[in-house]
Amino acid sequence: MELPKGFRFAGVACGIKSRQGALDLTLIVADNECTAAGVYTTNQVVAAPVVLSRSRTPSQQFRGIVVNSGNANACTGAKGMTDALEMSKLAASAVADKKLAGTTAAHEDQWIVMSTGIIGRFLPMDKIANGIRQAAAELATGEHAYLNAADGIMTTDIARKIASRQVKLPSGKSISIVGMAKGAGMIGPKMATMLGCLITDATFGADQAQRLLQQSADRSFNCISVEGHTSTNDSLVLLATKPTSDQPGLDESDEAVFSVALTELCIELAKKIPDDGEGATHLIEITIRGASSDADADRIARSVALSNLVKTAITGGDPNWGRIVSAVGYAGVPIKPEVLSLHLNGFHLFDRGEPLEFEAKAVSQSIRGQKLTEIELLVGYGRGTAKHWTTDLNAEYVRFNSEYST
Amino acid sequence: MELPKGFRFAGVACGIKSRQGALDLTLIVADNECTAAGVYTTNQVVAAPVVLSRSRTPSQQFRGIVVNSGNANACTGAKGMTDALEMSKLAASAVADKKLAGTTAAHEDQWIVMSTGIIGRFLPMDKIANGIRQAAAELATGEHAYLNAADGIMTTDIARKIASRQVKLPSGKSISIVGMAKGAGMIGPKMATMLGCLITDATFGADQAQRLLQQSADRSFNCISVEGHTSTNDSLVLLATKPTSDQPGLDESDEAVFSVALTELCIELAKKIPDDGEGATHLIEITIRGASSDADADRIARSVALSNLVKTAITGGDPNWGRIVSAVGYAGVPIKPEVLSLHLNGFHLFDRGEPLEFEAKAVSQSIRGQKLTEIELLVGYGRGTAKHWTTDLNAEYVRFNSEYST
Repeated sequence: MELPKGFRFAGVACGIKSRQGALDLTLIVADNECTAAGVYTTNQVVAAPVVLSRSRTPSQQFRGIVVNSGNANACTGAKGMTDALEMSKLAASAVADKKLAGTTAAHEDQWIVMSTGIIGRFLPMDKIANGIRQAAAELATGEHAYLNAADGIMTTDIARKIASRQVKLPSGKSISIVGMAKGAGMIGPKMATMLGCLITDATFGADQAQRLLQQSADRSFNCISVEGHTSTNDSLVLLATKPTSDQPGLDESDEAVFSVALTELCIELAKKIPDDGEGATHLIEITIRGASSDADADRIARSVALSNLVKTAITGGDPNWGRIVSAVGYAGVPIKPEVLSLHLNGFHLFDRGEPLEFEAKAVSQSIRGQKLTEIELLVGYGRGTAKHWTTDLNAEYVRFNSEYST
Repeated sequence: MELPKGFRFAGVACGIKSRQGALDLTLIVADNECTAAGVYTTNQVVAAPVVLSRSRTPSQQFRGIVVNSGNANACTGAKGMTDALEMSKLAASAVADKKLAGTTAAHEDQWIVMSTGIIGRFLPMDKIANGIRQAAAELATGEHAYLNAADGIMTTDIARKIASRQVKLPSGKSISIVGMAKGAGMIGPKMATMLGCLITDATFGADQAQRLLQQSADRSFNCISVEGHTSTNDSLVLLATKPTSDQPGLDESDEAVFSVALTELCIELAKKIPDDGEGATHLIEITIRGASSDADADRIARSVALSNLVKTAITGGDPNWGRIVSAVGYAGVPIKPEVLSLHLNGFHLFDRGEPLEFEAKAVSQSIRGQKLTEIELLVGYGRGTAKHWTTDLNAEYVRFNSEYST
């Protein structure tokens, strides 16, 4: 893995999480001013760090990202906003104390702030202040520091979620993109309880970066769910090299190649979230074809993905396909019941509105025997398609979520 | 309980359900032609009996209802429609053979047909034919026959669901309304996997009956959910006495009193469904106030009700109120976060956007100690209100639904 040039990473344990030594504070710092773009939750009940970061992106005067895990700083009223601002200030002064090479001193408004964890509790600001100072002292460019940063944003995640791409652009430039994400529960349509940081040494202006990020998010992080609960804290940000007169933003052909790589990386990273869904034993990939539009296909995919009855059937290895086709029918967009056809793990179960004979045992074994379950639906004659990834629903998920805060 | 005059009931075991002796075929027959109104699923993937019954109601030329449980006759293509029509024919001829007192012989198009159970299997028509003949032979006016009819429509229900009202109307008439319902899983917004039969000896024209039924359904059966999966088979029907020149439909003041009683009865019956949700240990009542409109309040209530994270928190007796207020925020209708306030079982947990100190243990005990959990939310300054009833989500539900068809 080649890390993008011009960025430093750190992840430290500052005691927000109760488990001794668990990393819970991450810093990602650009050596010089950089470009930053962001995509955030659509929830109207929104955490203080999201309000703050959303007001700051996109911009070309950024210095970095400060993230804490273990506490979402959500539903915390006026004090929550004061605390989020304080995290910006602490990051700026810790980096200034470190005297990192920079064209300008780091200002307090040059930071993206992210928080994730339990809702409705105030941040332990003394621990956070210590953590930010410690992280600034440990900032480094190597893989070890990058992995610590990726671990520092995790909450209930079992597995670390990272992905990277090295891309040779048409103009001959070689660039690197790396990403880290967290999320396992409270993953819903239109952004999940999910944090994602994408860092590249490709050069972009603010608006260009924002457009590329939104496009990639719509094909990846906006196509996953665990239980459909849209969080208060979802944030996905992209840091990129800032354009200068010597080094302008990528031209059209370079941008096109970069955009494909970024979307691929985002899909790889996004799929890791439902794959790690709390207690999940299956990653369910839903493919819709034949809808009137991509947007309609997306609504149908979500309707299937969010059905507890579909999810529990997959948990049990039960080829109960009636639950799948009925979830198509209530998605709220027009479909053609007489065209409706279903394949499950390649087995053809329902064809143009009629049930087919099939070997239930073989289908059941195909579900039980592997982590991935593929659901493919043809819903009409249109050209709209969509893909969506979700988890099954099992007793472990319920047990876990019944005991989260108490 | 006083049963409405002019109707006969039967429920028999004909072998559709595998459990020996389980009642699975119900007949409800009017002695004379009666009025019938119906409200059906909004799913576009719709079972054959729903297509048939929807095309026939409302009407004043009805004779009755034939219901089977254990098989939904859904997603069964052309043969499914032939079988639903055949159920009508069998009911008409069995009743004709019995020579019930009637102003006309029963025709095959004078029947509502309902089916509920597994999706995608063809009906065992030989068993159904025997069952209909046997039920016609057992038709009776007493409570025993009525209770058998109520049991014959059940599937995974643990408890029988019946309700009744005796009403003295302003004009001096005394009328009776009885209802039976079934449903425990696949209960979603806008009608559930739910069958309901309401029978009254009050006199209504077809359009009057249809209007009253729709009004009551919107306040009751359309305000419940278990997992939000809208079924292919939902049907709620009302049978009433047919108006004649001697006995016209109820006048305005009688209708108003009847309407209140009908809605109360429907709410009583509808609440029994999530109360009996597969494996449910809590009935959750969600009350929304302050929305811009009743429709907005309804969307917010559904958003909270369908959140697996809210449901699992209640299962665990966990006062994790952040999940509740965040579900308000993604309902897709405007709210005022600075007004947003929450009471849980009477405890004030969140006030105008700020968290309150509270005794977590006391709130937790209030959840654990009783079946009903009350969630009350103030979301703005508007006059829109709504109530919604749903279940918690526990491991038993998941276990049950992982093993339903296999």
